[in-house]
Amino acid sequence: MSQSTRHLANAIRALSMDAVQAANSGHPGMPMGMADAVTILFRKYLKFDPTSPKWPDRDRFVLSAGHGSMLIYSLMHLTGYARPTLDDLRNFRQLDSVCAGHPENFELEGIEATTGPLGQGLAMAVGMAIAERHLNATFGDDLVDHRTWVIAGDGCLMEGINHEAIGLAGHLKLGRLIVLWDDNRITIDGPTSLSTSEDVKARYRATGWHVVECDGLDGEDVERALGEAVFDPRPSLVACRTVIGFGSPNKQGTHSVHGSPLGADEIKAARETLEWINPAFELPGEIVAAWSEIGKQGAAEREAWEARLAAAPEGLELSRRTAGDLPEGFSLGGHIGSLIETPQKIATRVASQLALDAINAALPETIGGSADLTPSNNTATKGLQPLTAEDYSGRYVHYGIREFGMSAAMNGMALHGGVIPYGGTFLVFADYARPAIRLSALQRTRVVYVMTHDSIGLGEDGPTHQPIEHVMSLRLIPNLTVFRPADAVETAECWQLALERSDGPSLIALSRQNLRQVRTEVASENLSAKGGYRLVAAKAARRVVLIATGSEVEIAADVAAALEAEGIGADVVSMPSWEAFDDQDEAYRADVLPDDVLRVSIEAGTTIGWERYVGLKGLRFGIDRFGASAPAGDLYKKFGLTAEQIAPKVLAAVRGV
Amino acid sequence: MSQSTRHLANAIRALSMDAVQAANSGHPGMPMGMADAVTILFRKYLKFDPTSPKWPDRDRFVLSAGHGSMLIYSLMHLTGYARPTLDDLRNFRQLDSVCAGHPENFELEGIEATTGPLGQGLAMAVGMAIAERHLNATFGDDLVDHRTWVIAGDGCLMEGINHEAIGLAGHLKLGRLIVLWDDNRITIDGPTSLSTSEDVKARYRATGWHVVECDGLDGEDVERALGEAVFDPRPSLVACRTVIGFGSPNKQGTHSVHGSPLGADEIKAARETLEWINPAFELPGEIVAAWSEIGKQGAAEREAWEARLAAAPEGLELSRRTAGDLPEGFSLGGHIGSLIETPQKIATRVASQLALDAINAALPETIGGSADLTPSNNTATKGLQPLTAEDYSGRYVHYGIREFGMSAAMNGMALHGGVIPYGGTFLVFADYARPAIRLSALQRTRVVYVMTHDSIGLGEDGPTHQPIEHVMSLRLIPNLTVFRPADAVETAECWQLALERSDGPSLIALSRQNLRQVRTEVASENLSAKGGYRLVAAKAARRVVLIATGSEVEIAADVAAALEAEGIGADVVSMPSWEAFDDQDEAYRADVLPDDVLRVSIEAGTTIGWERYVGLKGLRFGIDRFGASAPAGDLYKKFGLTAEQIAPKVLAAVRGV
Repeated sequence: MSQSTRHLANAIRALSMDAVQAANSGHPGMPMGMADAVTILFRKYLKFDPTSPKWPDRDRFVLSAGHGSMLIYSLMHLTGYARPTLDDLRNFRQLDSVCAGHPENFELEGIEATTGPLGQGLAMAVGMAIAERHLNATFGDDLVDHRTWVIAGDGCLMEGINHEAIGLAGHLKLGRLIVLWDDNRITIDGPTSLSTSEDVKARYRATGWHVVECDGLDGEDVERALGEAVFDPRPSLVACRTVIGFGSPNKQGTHSVHGSPLGADEIKAARETLEWINPAFELPGEIVAAWSEIGKQGAAEREAWEARLAAAPEGLELSRRTAGDLPEGFSLGGHIGSLIETPQKIATRVASQLALDAINAALPETIGGSADLTPSNNTATKGLQPLTAEDYSGRYVHYGIREFGMSAAMNGMALHGGVIPYGGTFLVFADYARPAIRLSALQRTRVVYVMTHDSIGLGEDGPTHQPIEHVMSLRLIPNLTVFRPADAVETAECWQLALERSDGPSLIALSRQNLRQVRTEVASENLSAKGGYRLVAAKAARRVVLIATGSEVEIAADVAAALEAEGIGADVVSMPSWEAFDDQDEAYRADVLPDDVLRVSIEAGTTIGWERYVGLKGLRFGIDRFGASAPAGDLYKKFGLTAEQIAPKVLAAVRGV
Repeated sequence: MSQSTRHLANAIRALSMDAVQAANSGHPGMPMGMADAVTILFRKYLKFDPTSPKWPDRDRFVLSAGHGSMLIYSLMHLTGYARPTLDDLRNFRQLDSVCAGHPENFELEGIEATTGPLGQGLAMAVGMAIAERHLNATFGDDLVDHRTWVIAGDGCLMEGINHEAIGLAGHLKLGRLIVLWDDNRITIDGPTSLSTSEDVKARYRATGWHVVECDGLDGEDVERALGEAVFDPRPSLVACRTVIGFGSPNKQGTHSVHGSPLGADEIKAARETLEWINPAFELPGEIVAAWSEIGKQGAAEREAWEARLAAAPEGLELSRRTAGDLPEGFSLGGHIGSLIETPQKIATRVASQLALDAINAALPETIGGSADLTPSNNTATKGLQPLTAEDYSGRYVHYGIREFGMSAAMNGMALHGGVIPYGGTFLVFADYARPAIRLSALQRTRVVYVMTHDSIGLGEDGPTHQPIEHVMSLRLIPNLTVFRPADAVETAECWQLALERSDGPSLIALSRQNLRQVRTEVASENLSAKGGYRLVAAKAARRVVLIATGSEVEIAADVAAALEAEGIGADVVSMPSWEAFDDQDEAYRADVLPDDVLRVSIEAGTTIGWERYVGLKGLRFGIDRFGASAPAGDLYKKFGLTAEQIAPKVLAAVRGV
């Protein structure tokens, strides 16, 4: 017999309050408020197959309000995903449990995105919806035809990134994106009226969205609203009026139920209110069976899709892209060879564009873009058409002045799969995107950040635009590979590494100003892959090793020449990536950075951190204050970053040794 | 004879295009488009007196679209500010010029805020408008009664922070905030239609704003629109329809005029179009005279205000607050004394609240708040009433889930003067606020960031909520003082230092978990002022110095005890602030961190950077990966951060030395 929505939903409520209670930690309020709405979603609309969580044409479901993680854990358990098991639920928020405090894509197959940092789930969903439409335009309805669903709370809607995300979605008319807003009017501080007076629905309409309202606690009304949302060609906001902690007779509708266990007494009272007689973590057989049926609804569709995929001529290509495999033999070797033949004195941002010319021709899965700095970031290449609401097959997104929204969307695209996103802004504005860069690293998405104007070398725009702490601060983020190439050759090498890195994000810091090509000889391997390598070997007896990155490598080479002229042998080590260098074995590192020399770092940014390679007795040349507004050459002089100023200091130090 | 708006405005246009041309760098488009509108603003509405740029009751004028800096430099020159001179304008964007690429509050008196990072100028203006209403509610109309005006471009409106800022302003009904939107429909990539389809006016209305439109090139229409804005009790958006680069016959209305010099030929053509016959940097006498008159309009009002201030009983108190002087004898010594008497084992976030109890009672100028984490950040104290649209005299702002908007608003409050803002969120969400924290540091605003849940010690919320790289990455920002106190006593000391620091921001990282009070003896001075100090001196012959911060200091103390039990003498250095420690003289630093010992760092965050104090031969205990979801104690064990796990490793290393 068919179970009522409420009864099915109460299974979610019970598991959520019981797991939070067992952990003595967590957020029962949201799952209890949204249980009916998600029950309708999973039962009537969501295309999914728990036996095949990576099915490429599945609908994506993103719990943007990630603190309500017990909602998705309950749903996954009930519908038949291999994990979480009941024991997993019992271990909610405990060490080594797959049921972490917030949903994490790397813990459970079926979690589409790691959420919790508010607003970003929805913004990633925008990227998923872009990827879906793009692949649909490329491969057709038979192979790509799914929706992206989001549960968002007031926090997701108040965060600034919401504006960027929905602006992009509205502009691109992403009709397959549907956001269920848990409109419960409660935040941690209390009622939403403490901090906001906005008409959310009017704002969404102003941004090109379709808005429909429903009683989130009334299954039939939710079903109607979702139906309207599916029908409308615009992205939809489904405003679900709910009561936080619904079912908890004494706490529902208040902020006390947001982020704390209900307590044993209140759970007992809630069980009575909900007419839920089973003990904790025990589910009635008929409920288990009914949810299991819901979980099986998608299998036939998935099988039919697999048959279509197998029969389609473009099936192999789609499978290659969704697997994330680069085309056989992809290499920038030819491009690098031509640079060696004809050296270029160009900015590395221009070198990046040259590399991208080759990359975009060879990899149809790239989707480029910029946060409104296309002519400065050099992210567009010839022949790349814009991705627009009228033509989703384009491969270049004009993200607008939305660095954070762009970065989160790129995470969503990468999580969706089938595309490799890259996007640009000025390096200083990595700060605006930093929460998304962190989520790239945590989720290990293959996203390439193209960050130009990477130092005081950008010149006149001045200290608001000049990165000082940025390169170093990005190196601190676990799993993020930061590249700062020294010339056109290293830029191509770093691009190759970034694209080959399938298990995490890369960030390439690029100069505005022209740089001499320091790599002029054919190499048998990608030298940047070592992270740091001896670019110039000392001619006289080696007493100094100069370590530099990016635009300062040519300065280091000039310093070395000045030292050699004084009979002091000096190696120059180019270190485009700390992370890659630290991954080399000890023998290699000791060979590149020997103990018995004066080590010197040169980088046009903070010197804090360089003690890692030069030690306490080494010299660190850099900038430990904010920059200034002036032509680049004047600034390098002002901050002492010229060979003429550095060489005498190194000389004095080495002679003092 | 009265000059036409257009003729006056053309002086701005000419100076802007000439200065950008001379610098061969800059943005002529915005000043040329908005020249008429700002001419009306300065002539008819703005309350200012160039001879007294710090007059507390002046209107605030914020150029949020900071790239159009020649607009404000031209206006300041024309209306009679001491600087910039004509020579300053000629030196636009050159080394040591006060006319930097973007307007900087520390370069010129009269620049209210450093702008350029888009969206933040408007968001800071919201803070200024909050401070104005708060002081008005406290000191009355006679002493505080001014407006905040903003020029914003499409970038300012597309950035996510715009949503947070206008949401806060609309909610607080900041009717004295008026934003002139330069609606020129052009961004760097091209027409705004490339990336946005939103109905900006409808969005602002949905957020509680009054919206009025005008032809931004028609002085009379602008005057009407500003009049309506002044009249309306809500914050106002004045949508000024303009043409970017107006007056440049071949380039106006296109993105080519946004960020590049016009070129000599086009400047010549523009001069003809604008009927502006004077050569570069030469102004007609009647224009100079007319602008000079505009600059003198405010003097009488300023003098009358000064007379009222002198006569008012509360005048001295207002002057104290606007000067930024703390009340005579302000000290947390009494509070610290009581902690020494009765040691507390509490979380430092709770200790922070205890300190705030004393602070908020002693300093009527503090305005606290939290980005919707009040019960977690412990930022509210007894008796602090909320600052609301109905009662601006309150001293606690429920900022909502708007970390970035809160931080920018705090910058604006501090820039306005008369108040000392502090605000809280989780430390991990410092990333969301980072661009504003950077502007606090660059602008040297007295803002105190209260960042709780400062490590894996927050436990179950897991890696999305656990700071790893954050403390270190914040230390890299120049001018920002980062504190990570170890217990309740250090927390009070750090609060004292943060409040006494009148020339820059402080950030206090605080634990969620309870910490043993390690400071139990009366000290004759504020030990945290040294940044790092010997908390425990070795009993046996000293062979180890353990350096720790925050919650890891008690672990270091336990490690030291274990080492002493083995006959190895070990100092414990508590280092609540790197910046303060680095400011000490070499003798002090060498005494605290001697050369002839094994140095060991313990901090529950990235170990990158700690080489600065422990060198290449030292040991660094920390976490160089993302965290995990589990109870805090389990996580400390998992990541090896217990005395039981650390002591044997130190012992092995020291015995190997």
